[in-house]
Amino acid sequence: MLRNTSKHIAIAGAGLVGSLLSIYLKKRGYSVSVFERRGDMRSSDYVGGRSINLALSNRGIRALEEVGLAEELKRIAIPMHGRMMHDMKGNLSYQAYGKEGQYINSISRSALNIALMNEAETIGVQFYFEQKIEKTDLEKTTLTIEDKHKKFTEKKFDLIIGADGAFSAIRDAFRISDRFDYQQFYIQHGYKELSIPAGPGNTFQLEKNALHIWPRESFMLIALPNPDGTFTLTLFFPFEGNPSFASIDSTQAIKEFLEKTFPDAVALMPEYLKEFEQNPTSSLVTVKCYPWVKNNTLLIGDAAHAIVPFYGQGMNAGFEDCRVLNNLLDEHKDNWETLLPAFQQLRKPDGDAIAQLALDNFIEMRDLVADKEFLLRKKIEAKLYELFPTQWIPQYSMVTFHENIRYSEAYTKGQKQKKIMDEVMAQTNIEETWERLDFNEIVGRL
Amino acid sequence: MLRNTSKHIAIAGAGLVGSLLSIYLKKRGYSVSVFERRGDMRSSDYVGGRSINLALSNRGIRALEEVGLAEELKRIAIPMHGRMMHDMKGNLSYQAYGKEGQYINSISRSALNIALMNEAETIGVQFYFEQKIEKTDLEKTTLTIEDKHKKFTEKKFDLIIGADGAFSAIRDAFRISDRFDYQQFYIQHGYKELSIPAGPGNTFQLEKNALHIWPRESFMLIALPNPDGTFTLTLFFPFEGNPSFASIDSTQAIKEFLEKTFPDAVALMPEYLKEFEQNPTSSLVTVKCYPWVKNNTLLIGDAAHAIVPFYGQGMNAGFEDCRVLNNLLDEHKDNWETLLPAFQQLRKPDGDAIAQLALDNFIEMRDLVADKEFLLRKKIEAKLYELFPTQWIPQYSMVTFHENIRYSEAYTKGQKQKKIMDEVMAQTNIEETWERLDFNEIVGRL
Repeated sequence: MLRNTSKHIAIAGAGLVGSLLSIYLKKRGYSVSVFERRGDMRSSDYVGGRSINLALSNRGIRALEEVGLAEELKRIAIPMHGRMMHDMKGNLSYQAYGKEGQYINSISRSALNIALMNEAETIGVQFYFEQKIEKTDLEKTTLTIEDKHKKFTEKKFDLIIGADGAFSAIRDAFRISDRFDYQQFYIQHGYKELSIPAGPGNTFQLEKNALHIWPRESFMLIALPNPDGTFTLTLFFPFEGNPSFASIDSTQAIKEFLEKTFPDAVALMPEYLKEFEQNPTSSLVTVKCYPWVKNNTLLIGDAAHAIVPFYGQGMNAGFEDCRVLNNLLDEHKDNWETLLPAFQQLRKPDGDAIAQLALDNFIEMRDLVADKEFLLRKKIEAKLYELFPTQWIPQYSMVTFHENIRYSEAYTKGQKQKKIMDEVMAQTNIEETWERLDFNEIVGRL
Repeated sequence: MLRNTSKHIAIAGAGLVGSLLSIYLKKRGYSVSVFERRGDMRSSDYVGGRSINLALSNRGIRALEEVGLAEELKRIAIPMHGRMMHDMKGNLSYQAYGKEGQYINSISRSALNIALMNEAETIGVQFYFEQKIEKTDLEKTTLTIEDKHKKFTEKKFDLIIGADGAFSAIRDAFRISDRFDYQQFYIQHGYKELSIPAGPGNTFQLEKNALHIWPRESFMLIALPNPDGTFTLTLFFPFEGNPSFASIDSTQAIKEFLEKTFPDAVALMPEYLKEFEQNPTSSLVTVKCYPWVKNNTLLIGDAAHAIVPFYGQGMNAGFEDCRVLNNLLDEHKDNWETLLPAFQQLRKPDGDAIAQLALDNFIEMRDLVADKEFLLRKKIEAKLYELFPTQWIPQYSMVTFHENIRYSEAYTKGQKQKKIMDEVMAQTNIEETWERLDFNEIVGRL
């Protein structure tokens, strides 16, 4: 019967979601302890293992606003107003993400995480690093934790929240409990990070305020800007087949392939060969599971719904989880017994929707954005959006800029719009005639 | 480079599949050690935890023939030639499973398992009981095993085979390795075993040579005969909702519900209330994963593809795995390096197919078998089978009696047949006119 806010809550994971959630809960008056397997990323000897920058958009910003950190963090973020596509010859084409003033933000993962941890500590959250969760007892609500001296301690809490990511240790206890549905699957592509250094005087060597894409049908390279003038590049590339990480297996083959495929990028990357050979190749997992709650233990963020990065929504979805949970704490007057089931029922369809959207968007990013018919489709949809700004909102906009539309709603509406647009695009001579379409009638089909 | 048969193979799990596989491999000349978490079921103090009897059909029998045990085991099996349906008033209707002479077999799980272990030990397989696999190292091909004295030992093998069931410990090592796709999901129903005792002089109180079904749309009770005149009953029933294990929560409610719903069965079950209240309620999981092979470790049987029991194929599929593996050992001249990838590529579609067939068949068993239109459909299909015995084989027959047809093939063909039958059944007045159908034309649609 966890009703009042004097309870002691353990959060597993001091990543982005765990740190943000600790602030929300501490502000409500809970006693909050955060246990992190890795060391403190604020210490000098910390070695990171995750992606360098992230796309922060409206859903994430909304949560940061609620905890009072949005302004501070926007200052270190770089707005990206659209996609800049690079073809094989280095020709550029540009596509805005939304209307004037709508943009996503490139932000440093570590800067964001550190800001969240600092704020959390300032208001009294206790962080414990190098603490490995060895066992979670879902009946007793206890954690058995191994500290850096290999000492094991069993600790009891009123509530445990697993915000410990795609490979959550808390979730392991769920997985071996009865009637827990669980799925993990990998796409055929892995990724490798590369970089473009800053130009003279920390200038940006590519357009600063865009997300750059080198779409190559079955794979792609992308680049996000960093405040110091550098770009972090990510190559999403098949593990097997031709071409693939497996097939390009010599320095010479790497050199030839990259120079031929991404000539304008490679020209700006003096270290690309070294980076390609030395940086790890990582895999991309989707995790789905249910329930997210067993007794007094909850899974949240990637621990509950890890997704691929192609919609730039992983962190934003996790932050939205925290905001939704906080709203439910208001609604349920901090009665966890009723709010935990309500939380998972409400959020599960949204987690499933963004997982599917993220998988689908990979095909859009790597292939369709270079497709003439697809660009015309986007143009027609932009026109519909302009004429009927509340009735026809393109799916990308719903997901990215309309935080009041649930992911599941964005998914369903987007599917409906896609069906209508398929019909529109099937009309003969649509390239010539599209401006004379009866847009009223099209919106009427919704 | 495991080429010749002097290698040492560890099998995890002394269940049906592990024991059968150990015989196959020992007969080829391998040194085979079987490690079982539980005690020896042949010892007097063994407490079982699994279902009491199973349906053995052609695929399983084929494997038992290959290891020379089919005749011995058929003697303790009871042929079931068809389904005997019991309605709410105790009225019976009967549906044969196939043609004259085609039947499935009710067999005791423990008797079958013991026969396999005895044979394996006779030919030199080493069994080790109460051995818990703590860790599997997929790189080094080692098992860290905890014995009953809590002593841990790391053992190295040339090959490790995980035949340790739906909750395989070997599979845990796969799950935490990179790029392993894994899914476990539970159906909404659980099951509980009940029993009908033998009549005077060990007589059978229901028709002996049938599988009995009490189909009740959203749930069902089934009964399989045992050699001692008893029947083992299994109630498949929702966990939640109304009615469900949760809703029938008092002795009085259980009594009223069972007496009303299964009157003829309950009349033969003096202990039904005690059994209902004391026997455990178990859940039903489906497990899918891939790959089944990492280096020199292989998953097989339920460890690779656990399914629900509604097609009576779980054990048969596992036995078929062993037979297919043995065939590939012949083909590849015991070169495991090439045969392991070949095995998983060949068998994965069959594992997926039988998983889906088993899920689909639950609806057929609990609901459709009591449906008039469905029975007519079966009658028309039986006619097609009679007229075109090689072209139109009903799906149930393909799966159960035609061991040369792969599960994946039976699934695809069955889907095609279903589509044609949907069209046939949609004809007006089909109940009256079906005997005048142009059966030649129908088969021509295949």
